[in-house]
Amino acid sequence: MPKPEARRFPKKSFANDAEMQIFDLRRYLKEKQEAVNTSLDKVWENQRPRPSPLIRAMRYSVEAGGKRLRPLLSIAASEAVGGSEGDVMPAACALELIHTYSLIHDDLPAMDNDDLRRGKATCHKAFDEATAILAGDALLTLAFEILANAGRLDEPDKALKWLEVAFLMARAAGCSGMVEGQMQDILSEQRQLTLDELETLQGLKTGALIVASVQAGAILGGGSAPQIASLATYGRHIGLAFQMADDILNIEGRPDILGKPVGSDEALHKATGPSLMGLEQAKARMGELVEKALEELDGFAERGAPLSAIARYVIERNR
Amino acid sequence: MPKPEARRFPKKSFANDAEMQIFDLRRYLKEKQEAVNTSLDKVWENQRPRPSPLIRAMRYSVEAGGKRLRPLLSIAASEAVGGSEGDVMPAACALELIHTYSLIHDDLPAMDNDDLRRGKATCHKAFDEATAILAGDALLTLAFEILANAGRLDEPDKALKWLEVAFLMARAAGCSGMVEGQMQDILSEQRQLTLDELETLQGLKTGALIVASVQAGAILGGGSAPQIASLATYGRHIGLAFQMADDILNIEGRPDILGKPVGSDEALHKATGPSLMGLEQAKARMGELVEKALEELDGFAERGAPLSAIARYVIERNR
Repeated sequence: MPKPEARRFPKKSFANDAEMQIFDLRRYLKEKQEAVNTSLDKVWENQRPRPSPLIRAMRYSVEAGGKRLRPLLSIAASEAVGGSEGDVMPAACALELIHTYSLIHDDLPAMDNDDLRRGKATCHKAFDEATAILAGDALLTLAFEILANAGRLDEPDKALKWLEVAFLMARAAGCSGMVEGQMQDILSEQRQLTLDELETLQGLKTGALIVASVQAGAILGGGSAPQIASLATYGRHIGLAFQMADDILNIEGRPDILGKPVGSDEALHKATGPSLMGLEQAKARMGELVEKALEELDGFAERGAPLSAIARYVIERNR
Repeated sequence: MPKPEARRFPKKSFANDAEMQIFDLRRYLKEKQEAVNTSLDKVWENQRPRPSPLIRAMRYSVEAGGKRLRPLLSIAASEAVGGSEGDVMPAACALELIHTYSLIHDDLPAMDNDDLRRGKATCHKAFDEATAILAGDALLTLAFEILANAGRLDEPDKALKWLEVAFLMARAAGCSGMVEGQMQDILSEQRQLTLDELETLQGLKTGALIVASVQAGAILGGGSAPQIASLATYGRHIGLAFQMADDILNIEGRPDILGKPVGSDEALHKATGPSLMGLEQAKARMGELVEKALEELDGFAERGAPLSAIARYVIERNR
């Protein structure tokens, strides 16, 4: 009988040099995270008036940690189609600002009412509620300022690509994507979701922006239409897998990694993959999603390695 | 001795055909407001999933009335430089969505805690606080979706103009403009502002988006750099004049026009132009600002008539 762990990982993650790949990924992630953080630091230089309590609250939340997953995905997608980190960096920063704003607003008393995020006081706890609402608003706005500014300053023949990226990102973040997902999440607290409804909700709430991250990288990196489509499919699967991994971690994880108490979803009777299908089934589904994501990378050969490593990282961190 | 009313109006508003011009403006405003409302109606057709409580809350606030001042200014600015209503309509809609989002968030319990807006229940009263926060977020995001979509679907040689407009609008709406203004407004409740500080605050909170409205119209209408600059200056003056007019109306106005109780600023000990310089002085300053705005229209001849009429309307409605 195979060891239970074995069934949790899709075949493609069993490369002979698995340990080596994990090491490489760590270096890759660290390098790119630093590049993203350096670019995010520069964002504030263009803002006035400084110093402002508003900018302080915005920076506090942006600098509160986080894996920079969305920027990393957009950079890795750009590289997968032969583009560079520089091609996509403003979009990478915009994605992180949108993600950060969504966390600030989700944590508000009228929403999830969370006091802690990644082990630090949430924005409305560190500042106050009005400042947190405004900091979120300003981060969302700043994301589009950065995209539009990058577009108007880039080569004129790239203008349409920036407009396309801004469009996809707005679409993914707003009432056809993330905000609608959060609305459905709040409404779903009053009733039991089916598995289908849950995946639709998660596809909107966290999946859409992850897909947009990969698409932004693929478009700005100069990918072809089929490449962009493949990477979008990769993003859809990886988005659901990440959500599943988070929900599993919420049950099995260590609170020091989680930055919040283990079992908090269960305490809130929140519908998650594991709660609806059971822990083992949820792990199998996560493996299946990663497998499907990896299939989309077949045509990218070596250049797809970072995206492949990120996909496998999803489940590796759950060991 | 001249009648006190006479001093309230700048010379240029004393055209012989003043009554006729007011009538024309009414027709112009009505026609353009209807065109804007028709375009706003179409916005929802591209959104899914419908029907959603989120979209209902968004529409509720967008359709709660309002003069559509920012869209009107952008259309009139486009016409002033020889452009058309169609050139600028997506930007006009985006401006109204940004304005509406700002009202929803400003009314929240953590901010101004207003139950009524234009005589109707505010969004968080008609729905709930979480829905109002999300509706605001989604309206802001939708504004940039509309701008980016217009840009990617327009003639390729207009792409840079749309990026410029999206940039200016984000800049005017975010932490260098409107949101910073709201932050300063909240912080100013704890102390007495000087007149300079008040005009800076109002320039950020309401002025920046009015300037961006005029700039958007001038850019998309095909204006030259000097034309765009003149109209931006017009916008700066008119923005301050509008604020002054609102503050005067809050003291002198009729509650049925105001949609909220007369004297509410005074009851809150809120610093306004009239509270800092006195009512008569505030009216003189308003007239001076309109005068300065009108000076910027000299080079536009007949085409500047709607902008000129809007500027004069600011003070006419205070009679």
